[in-house]
Amino acid sequence: MKKFTIVEHLYKHIREVGVKTIFGVPGDFSLAMLDILESSNALRWIGCATELGAAYCADGYARANGLGVVLTTFGVGELSAATAIAGSTAEDVGVLHIVATPPTNALNVGSPLHHSFADGDLQRFQRVAQEIHNKTFTVTENNPLKTIKEAIHYWRTKASTTYIMLPQDIAVKESDNDFLPTPPLYEHISPNASKLISEFINKYPNAIAILGNVAQRRGVRELTPGLAEKNIPVAVLPNAKGIVNETDSNYIGIYNGKLSSPSLKNRAEGPSGRVLIGCTLADTTTGGLSHIFSSKNTLIIDAHTVSWNSRFENAPIKQAFIHWLSCSTPFAEEHATHHKESERFSKIDPQAALTQKSMWTILTQKMPEHVRIFAETGSPHYGALDSIFANDTVFECASIWSAIGYALPASLGASLSESTRRVVSVIGDGAAQMTANEFGLVDRYGANPVILILDNDGYTVERIIRGEKAAYNDVAQWQWRQLPATLGAKSARTTVCINSASFAESLSEAFKDESRAHVIIVPLDKYDATPSLLTMGKFLRAKAKLPSLEQSLSEG
Amino acid sequence: MKKFTIVEHLYKHIREVGVKTIFGVPGDFSLAMLDILESSNALRWIGCATELGAAYCADGYARANGLGVVLTTFGVGELSAATAIAGSTAEDVGVLHIVATPPTNALNVGSPLHHSFADGDLQRFQRVAQEIHNKTFTVTENNPLKTIKEAIHYWRTKASTTYIMLPQDIAVKESDNDFLPTPPLYEHISPNASKLISEFINKYPNAIAILGNVAQRRGVRELTPGLAEKNIPVAVLPNAKGIVNETDSNYIGIYNGKLSSPSLKNRAEGPSGRVLIGCTLADTTTGGLSHIFSSKNTLIIDAHTVSWNSRFENAPIKQAFIHWLSCSTPFAEEHATHHKESERFSKIDPQAALTQKSMWTILTQKMPEHVRIFAETGSPHYGALDSIFANDTVFECASIWSAIGYALPASLGASLSESTRRVVSVIGDGAAQMTANEFGLVDRYGANPVILILDNDGYTVERIIRGEKAAYNDVAQWQWRQLPATLGAKSARTTVCINSASFAESLSEAFKDESRAHVIIVPLDKYDATPSLLTMGKFLRAKAKLPSLEQSLSEG
Ligand SMILES: Cc1ncc(C[n+]2csc(CCOP(=O)(O)OP(=O)(O)O)c2C)c(N)n1
Ligand SMILES: Cc1ncc(C[n+]2csc(CCOP(=O)(O)OP(=O)(O)O)c2C)c(N)n1
Repeated sequence: MKKFTIVEHLYKHIREVGVKTIFGVPGDFSLAMLDILESSNALRWIGCATELGAAYCADGYARANGLGVVLTTFGVGELSAATAIAGSTAEDVGVLHIVATPPTNALNVGSPLHHSFADGDLQRFQRVAQEIHNKTFTVTENNPLKTIKEAIHYWRTKASTTYIMLPQDIAVKESDNDFLPTPPLYEHISPNASKLISEFINKYPNAIAILGNVAQRRGVRELTPGLAEKNIPVAVLPNAKGIVNETDSNYIGIYNGKLSSPSLKNRAEGPSGRVLIGCTLADTTTGGLSHIFSSKNTLIIDAHTVSWNSRFENAPIKQAFIHWLSCSTPFAEEHATHHKESERFSKIDPQAALTQKSMWTILTQKMPEHVRIFAETGSPHYGALDSIFANDTVFECASIWSAIGYALPASLGASLSESTRRVVSVIGDGAAQMTANEFGLVDRYGANPVILILDNDGYTVERIIRGEKAAYNDVAQWQWRQLPATLGAKSARTTVCINSASFAESLSEAFKDESRAHVIIVPLDKYDATPSLLTMGKFLRAKAKLPSLEQSLSEG
Repeated sequence: MKKFTIVEHLYKHIREVGVKTIFGVPGDFSLAMLDILESSNALRWIGCATELGAAYCADGYARANGLGVVLTTFGVGELSAATAIAGSTAEDVGVLHIVATPPTNALNVGSPLHHSFADGDLQRFQRVAQEIHNKTFTVTENNPLKTIKEAIHYWRTKASTTYIMLPQDIAVKESDNDFLPTPPLYEHISPNASKLISEFINKYPNAIAILGNVAQRRGVRELTPGLAEKNIPVAVLPNAKGIVNETDSNYIGIYNGKLSSPSLKNRAEGPSGRVLIGCTLADTTTGGLSHIFSSKNTLIIDAHTVSWNSRFENAPIKQAFIHWLSCSTPFAEEHATHHKESERFSKIDPQAALTQKSMWTILTQKMPEHVRIFAETGSPHYGALDSIFANDTVFECASIWSAIGYALPASLGASLSESTRRVVSVIGDGAAQMTANEFGLVDRYGANPVILILDNDGYTVERIIRGEKAAYNDVAQWQWRQLPATLGAKSARTTVCINSASFAESLSEAFKDESRAHVIIVPLDKYDATPSLLTMGKFLRAKAKLPSLEQSLSEG
């Protein structure tokens, strides 16, 4: 019988839980593992320009696919991925991070190796890892297969960031053991948790549903048609936009604390109560923590727990949602529908220069159903919130972690997943300058997203808040038109759109032609933004006792 | 009397210890501090594309200037700088890392803010910082000026990585206190330490000197002419190459454990003893930890300590060096001189395609005295080691930390320092793909290094070790000629050199014209490397029981 190396067992588990691709950058401690990867044919290796980009790709892949994997080398590689990994943790994305380390004996004696501080401490990066991953595992000579199985089981069950430290000597060792299948997923809700849900419904039969990012991430989206059937009013946090169709009559809009419409705020915070489903309540998802939810009439369904007065574990969010929905009685009344289908189709002057508003209007009109759209932190995020999407649009953002540089590699990674959804991403120029390095995935591996780069002369979102004319909000002048081809995306179709007509045409072409990536450069004014960003700016300027943006600009 | 804000006190200290520039990327928590920076005129802000690049710039600046500063925003910004900061720690470079954080009350109550995991833990990134900086400081409402002064004093005295966490509300508060000058540097060696040095010399009057990176970093270089005067034989670790003139008759070569020449190895490890001056003994500086130094006859002078049997603190390396040198008696005998002046001037066929060897030969011939040359981890590092530099060439590398992506931004940062040395850097294509984002510093701030990019189709250094034909050692195909202009270095002179003549001409032009940056692309064969890398490859392949490179390539 063929014997497998330890790392092959790891690869087999990864394949078994539905992941076909590993992103990463090699290093001397990982080369032997990569040789085994190449010859095993179980998984595809996608080599990125940077570890940061690789980890963001894995995040994008995981959003499209459920789980994703990034492999880096000890110290230099793993730290380079830190911002992305922390983002996956904050945003609840199931990324497995495999780190190839020096051999066991070097670790044990603390050899002064390169990629360390040569001070004998080779555990330092593992301690860093503990701070930014949900859980870390260290494979040692003591039953390595057991540790690997536990790690995979944790990663898959929790669908959270998981770190595996794998010494290079152990990885390449042959094991006498047969490959044992990954343990099955346990997906049942505990009786206590179900009971709590039923009790809440009895007491608050008219509670509305508020859905957040964790619901989005954990497969609740496919269950939301049930909400429409029962006519249950649904609001979403900004980062769960699109989890229900926005023109459905039970959709009542984006809840964002005091930045919501007054009627929505009243309804969401009112005495009939609410069920928070997978909602991470951060400043960016609650209008600066301005939400007022009485604990008395709030049922909280989280990734693995249900709480209302008491708190119960063993309640996977999908099962809790199903139970809650099945117990809920249909609503009779009509809701103040948030969006009319016709709103999406407001007219645009084709020759006018593009604005943030017209850009988003055209994009949402041209964008077919079933796309996955990444909106980068900055003006794109707010533009997306102010738009109405076609049915079954998956909206991806990182509104809690809010690191710029995310959307470009994440959308490349998503487009390289098995999902057939077309991938779109909208990215500011400042953000694009952080991770444009990964454009090479287009020619090398056939990544085919539609990427919009908003060329608006620097950090607009910051100008709206402070320093509207400050040099610190400027960025270098890149030649965007040449960028994709220069960085390894020769096959991409790159266009620069100066008016609505050319933009609409580029988009039509992009959505028609799935054979390649499309990069659309959109020049915009540096102070242009959509209403929700302007409102936020007003609010923050007032708080900081700064003059308003208009006043500051008119002061010359 | 004018009152200063807390952050102005910080800026004044920074200016006082000789730093004129802060590198960074803004974020909402730092905008108010940056407004104060802009209006205070004490320091120049240099905005980078990425925090990683900014921290590398600060490292390059610090190498040229003694100390350097990077400013990032909470969470997303600071983690993005982690690889660079860890590198500064490992390589002993005095970078101050200022992190702008949420306001005090948010930190105290653990508000679920963006740029955190919204889990109430806002101390997480400080714990990460503790792992990768030499020391961390947290400014609080409790005597913020005292903490700042302590931090600056630590940073300056230790010249090590130092982290200051500065809440945005405290930063902008006015202080009633006058600005008090930064405490003076205490630069004296303790009597115990001097005595130990004298005793060692008495016992081992013929000990040779071996200099390493810490000596390079801490101003020992300016004292090394004293070694030549006394004809004291000097070897250097790979990362201190060039700290003495390589054609001086007392220079006996690069000591690198068993990768050194046998005669040098014997001399360095022999019974007459050695003084290790600022030597970090890592695998990459000792031929894979193959050095054999008996503790009996080895005096160790480190950054702040002296040891031989006993160990004494309070011995700053420069003072210890001065004392040791003054006690040493001149050597009478002639040493086996490592390099003849004539060796540098071997002839090159001008029409031949460039090779690693001819490229380095031409470079070292064209490179004037007094440059600062960064050689990136990868084939460039080994090429530099195999070359003979002109007098007073400062060699910069990161052979312990060995993260690729370092040299490009570091050389940009060094060229933006007050040092008048011309800056050169030699970078592999894989490394350049990691941090090319920072080319914008050329047009925006006038950075003017001479940058050589070795376009050799991927990760050559790894191919030499393993996976010579593996896809994981390939990289994306970038259009190098267009790269600088596309990424904001339009003013740079970019040339592609296919033979010796054109390369020599580009270099002549580059060294004549200091008004701008020069980028020289050098296409090289993907298996080409200089002798020391090939030797290392042989050694590692044998250890891993792999066939030799030649054999693997001929197997088709
Ligand atoms: C890694 C990282 N560094 C810094 C920030 C702070 N930051 C938030 S938004 C922003 C500017 C975004 O500008 P851009 O991408 O051009 O979008 P715009 O709003 O101009 O359309 C910055 C620098 C961040 N979020 N992440
Ligand atoms: C941040 C980081 N990731 C990965 C590595 C592992 N690594 C060491 S050298 C190298 C390849 C360098 O290739 P290149 O820069 O093209 O130089 P070459 O040897 O080809 O001239 C890699 C990927 C590293 N040192 N640092």
